[in-house]
Amino acid sequence: MKNLLSGINFPDDLRQLKVEQLQQLSGELRDFIIDKCSANPGHFGASLGTVELTVALHYVFNTPYDKIIWDVGHQAYAHKILTGRKQSFDLNRKYNGLSGFPKMTESEYDAFGVGHASTSISAGLGMAIAARLNNEDRKIISVIGDGSITGGMAFEGFNNAGWQNADMLVILNDNNIAIDPNVGALKKYLTEITASNKYNKIKSNVWNLLGDGKFRWIIRRLGSTMKSAVLSEGNFFESLNFRYFGPIDGHDINTMVKTLSRLKTIKGPTLLHVLTKKGKGYKPAEENQTEWHAPGKFNKTTGEIQRLPVNPSKPVRYQDVFGETIVELAEMNPKIVGITPAMVTGCSLNLMMHHFPERTFDVGIAEAHAVTFSAGLAAAGYLPFCNIYSSFMQRAFDSVIHDIALQKLHVVLCLDRGGIVGEDGPTHHGVFDLAYFRLIPNMTVAAPMNEIELRNMLYTAQLPSAGPFSIRYPRGNGVTLNWRTPFEKIPTGKGRILKEGNDIAVLSIGHPGNFVTEAIRRLEAQNISVMHCDMRFLKPIDEDILHTVGKRFKHIVTVEDGTVVGGLGSAVAEFLSSNVYDCKIEILGAPDEFIQQGTVQELYAKCGFDADGIYNAIVKLLSITDTNPTA
Amino acid sequence: MKNLLSGINFPDDLRQLKVEQLQQLSGELRDFIIDKCSANPGHFGASLGTVELTVALHYVFNTPYDKIIWDVGHQAYAHKILTGRKQSFDLNRKYNGLSGFPKMTESEYDAFGVGHASTSISAGLGMAIAARLNNEDRKIISVIGDGSITGGMAFEGFNNAGWQNADMLVILNDNNIAIDPNVGALKKYLTEITASNKYNKIKSNVWNLLGDGKFRWIIRRLGSTMKSAVLSEGNFFESLNFRYFGPIDGHDINTMVKTLSRLKTIKGPTLLHVLTKKGKGYKPAEENQTEWHAPGKFNKTTGEIQRLPVNPSKPVRYQDVFGETIVELAEMNPKIVGITPAMVTGCSLNLMMHHFPERTFDVGIAEAHAVTFSAGLAAAGYLPFCNIYSSFMQRAFDSVIHDIALQKLHVVLCLDRGGIVGEDGPTHHGVFDLAYFRLIPNMTVAAPMNEIELRNMLYTAQLPSAGPFSIRYPRGNGVTLNWRTPFEKIPTGKGRILKEGNDIAVLSIGHPGNFVTEAIRRLEAQNISVMHCDMRFLKPIDEDILHTVGKRFKHIVTVEDGTVVGGLGSAVAEFLSSNVYDCKIEILGAPDEFIQQGTVQELYAKCGFDADGIYNAIVKLLSITDTNPTA
Repeated sequence: MKNLLSGINFPDDLRQLKVEQLQQLSGELRDFIIDKCSANPGHFGASLGTVELTVALHYVFNTPYDKIIWDVGHQAYAHKILTGRKQSFDLNRKYNGLSGFPKMTESEYDAFGVGHASTSISAGLGMAIAARLNNEDRKIISVIGDGSITGGMAFEGFNNAGWQNADMLVILNDNNIAIDPNVGALKKYLTEITASNKYNKIKSNVWNLLGDGKFRWIIRRLGSTMKSAVLSEGNFFESLNFRYFGPIDGHDINTMVKTLSRLKTIKGPTLLHVLTKKGKGYKPAEENQTEWHAPGKFNKTTGEIQRLPVNPSKPVRYQDVFGETIVELAEMNPKIVGITPAMVTGCSLNLMMHHFPERTFDVGIAEAHAVTFSAGLAAAGYLPFCNIYSSFMQRAFDSVIHDIALQKLHVVLCLDRGGIVGEDGPTHHGVFDLAYFRLIPNMTVAAPMNEIELRNMLYTAQLPSAGPFSIRYPRGNGVTLNWRTPFEKIPTGKGRILKEGNDIAVLSIGHPGNFVTEAIRRLEAQNISVMHCDMRFLKPIDEDILHTVGKRFKHIVTVEDGTVVGGLGSAVAEFLSSNVYDCKIEILGAPDEFIQQGTVQELYAKCGFDADGIYNAIVKLLSITDTNPTA
Repeated sequence: MKNLLSGINFPDDLRQLKVEQLQQLSGELRDFIIDKCSANPGHFGASLGTVELTVALHYVFNTPYDKIIWDVGHQAYAHKILTGRKQSFDLNRKYNGLSGFPKMTESEYDAFGVGHASTSISAGLGMAIAARLNNEDRKIISVIGDGSITGGMAFEGFNNAGWQNADMLVILNDNNIAIDPNVGALKKYLTEITASNKYNKIKSNVWNLLGDGKFRWIIRRLGSTMKSAVLSEGNFFESLNFRYFGPIDGHDINTMVKTLSRLKTIKGPTLLHVLTKKGKGYKPAEENQTEWHAPGKFNKTTGEIQRLPVNPSKPVRYQDVFGETIVELAEMNPKIVGITPAMVTGCSLNLMMHHFPERTFDVGIAEAHAVTFSAGLAAAGYLPFCNIYSSFMQRAFDSVIHDIALQKLHVVLCLDRGGIVGEDGPTHHGVFDLAYFRLIPNMTVAAPMNEIELRNMLYTAQLPSAGPFSIRYPRGNGVTLNWRTPFEKIPTGKGRILKEGNDIAVLSIGHPGNFVTEAIRRLEAQNISVMHCDMRFLKPIDEDILHTVGKRFKHIVTVEDGTVVGGLGSAVAEFLSSNVYDCKIEILGAPDEFIQQGTVQELYAKCGFDADGIYNAIVKLLSITDTNPTA
């Protein structure tokens, strides 16, 4: 059979095909994704699940005039491939390559940039209202997963779209899983809808009623009472003034095309419930969906995920230090509870969930709730460790201020993925947290330089009267092998002097302290003597160290894996300027711009705070000719 | 009739009364609130509406062992009066007095501190889970309004509580209004429930069924199918696994007590829909609910709100400059649309709503949605002005970063209530925005010193290619009479030198520039020569001015109506430290702590950046003996 995909570069090409050819095309697309992702890792499972949906949407709707907004967007690989990016797909998630998510500047088919969950209905509603104001008959389609739909903003979007009676179609892509198995009352409700025989019978009757000919006529005749009687199981959405259709099989391309063609003619807020399978068409991925969410490289024939051989001489991931330590602490301290919004595996809280299922809570994609729920637990005497990725914590900013810090509640906020995260790119880099946590009164802001510090910070944070306490650490591996040392309290607000020196002082916080160590090794080879302090706490900051370096040095370099605006560099500048220390400060960190995707090494280098960058900055500051920067 | 309220100081006293006495008590409570609020302004209407609910809750439940969490909390005056704060209620919202909101440190009856909307279900769930872990039979009651319930976190709370099958009672206090008339599809749904005769008939049947004796037995026998058939109209909540009861009349104290007594015995997530009237029992407040939300002082006999005589020589409020200017701009620029989350009157967007109803959107209490909805409109070619109070903008922090700044969308974010707001206290002070907006790449951060600057910033922000643009201004009145000057573009990132001087430089941003002017007047009387720059933009900051003052002065004072951590002071310190200007910087602003309630004048003075504070700081810096600080 002739390959179809090779002839398709844009949706216009796709629309030349006959409906009967779409199944073949879907298969080819799926093979293409499997092939590419096996060699160039990405978000695999979600994109396999939306192949038919994507084909059907671009086949039926007039994109890019009609707008598709993908929620989160890691399910949009088929969309990227069908919209001009088939050739460049090898560069998916690579430095200067394609973004792993839809991105407006990358393609006119990417109607809205995404990455964080639950934004598609709100953004789509904005476009639907714009179309109304313009008197355009433009179709707006927001595709949201059953995971993303648990985020509060999705509800806010439904509530406003229903009220505005907006012409928009929301497609609920229900694969019954986020990264970990999905949770929440609504998920249970959706499962019940889907399982209900009664419902399915009613549904097929309704679909018969709604057959092509009489379709619009019948819809008009269905008064709200009758409609809600017939479609009563869809009432969650109906109560928000969305017309509910489905559920339908999201892998049956003919049904998909037929259904979407009908829905295209409907005005007003409409929801289509589509059932899909994450990893569809690739057996290993269907069978272990969490592992195959983003599996890394794999052998596409055998389905074997490429694992580096277990290397006992390689440090573990920071997240596992968190995961294992929290279990130890929870054993010692019965008041400790663990909370995460849909990142159980991602932050390794699954270890605690295994040991203490009744004290571990996955609250779904709901960051603000996760924090305020933790505050409620703390107000009632428990000691919550709430783990949220740094860039997602932005969504709980007010909850941290209003519910935790203001009330001085003893909650430990653990920010995994703090700093540059790599291939996920600008939506996911955790480069703002140090700055936005520092401005919150009553908050302790800590960042470990290695596994032992992380472990001891976790220990310290659960001691009585620690108050609102945050600990942020990066994605990826640490640097220490034997990190299971006895717990030791770290005095809050105290840094440590790692190395004495005379020419210049470097103050670092967190993991980049290791880059400083490496830079110093090279500098010393050139007889440059550097003092290095691992600040450990951004707030309260160690003023003894600041006085010391302020008195002794003309040049101070600060290093942090976060924005240069408002973080460690600012804290040091504020202090020294207020105390008239006449030092020049060089602030190294993420520049004041959005950082693109790439490997963390590429991006550290680009930002200028890897060992080379630190070395160069110091050499420049001291105006010493650099003879051998990488020695 | 003997006065009952005089003998009641705590709920234990209340529980000595007979049910038949509660109506009288409610009347007395209402009179007490009317009397006190007429002389000492507060949130009036909401608290009148919850009198019977409050009496019934404390009568039926064993507070403080059982926990009541009031959402927002400005409806909790009766609660405060019944829980030990009757005598001190004269000090409501006053400096060193009572908080206008429930506050944990104020009373053990205040189970959770509130102020921002939509937190009560999440916090209550935390307490319900704590009770479960403790094996306590403690009752948790979250009271949430139909306004607050539109916030996404409320949905997140429902979704998790239903999933956890938590023992908690949510009381939906449905008065069909927030500050402005309520909006949203859910509100429409609630109205339909309430109006439905069919529903009311079914409901009374159900209530008969559920009579005392057979109550629990029947509940057990009601399978999910039958339940949802009988209570199908309550299905929004049922679909989230909440048992729905109601609606009942929230002013019928006997029904309230009876109903709550029954619900007390029910396990699992339960919702009681209570209908109340904002302003209940005080006719003027019932009839004009928006005006009487927080009316200020009034004559309780005549119902006349005390208005200062219209004084043409008094400047108008900043919010009205916004409101009137946006109408002018919208007339000139057809792409301008206005968006606010439930603050139509509060931010004076009602003026635009009046002139351009189809281009003005009240999206309900839903800050994140408001911002992402604006982003969608901008992506489709419109130019949204999105007005959100500064402290509520904290809830949209991620939306601003992820949906606007990252995509460089041209949205104008107007932050009303920036800085110290006065009597509403720590939950409402807008002291963080300058710092948390400064750290966002691509963002222009502006703050006007007076009405003309506000007007011209609004004009400048809508010019082509302005990009993501924020303008923050305070609550209350400006300083200029003739502010309707012809529009003038302000160069982005450029401050203005208000006064030359030689001894010291003061850099201010926003309204406190006027305090600087006053302080300088006094300093000049003592022959101290001060340079004063109105920076206007925090980001990008005017580096020409910074170079100038860095070169010329040994002492620089910065003044801002916001936290001293991360705002203007930090920006100046970063710049000067990086450029080796040897200056001592004194950063004046809100200290790094939560600021309590009081008048803005009291709080400015307390924070030390009113004219006195600035005067004193300068005198101290210059080490000049202060002979006459208030001359």
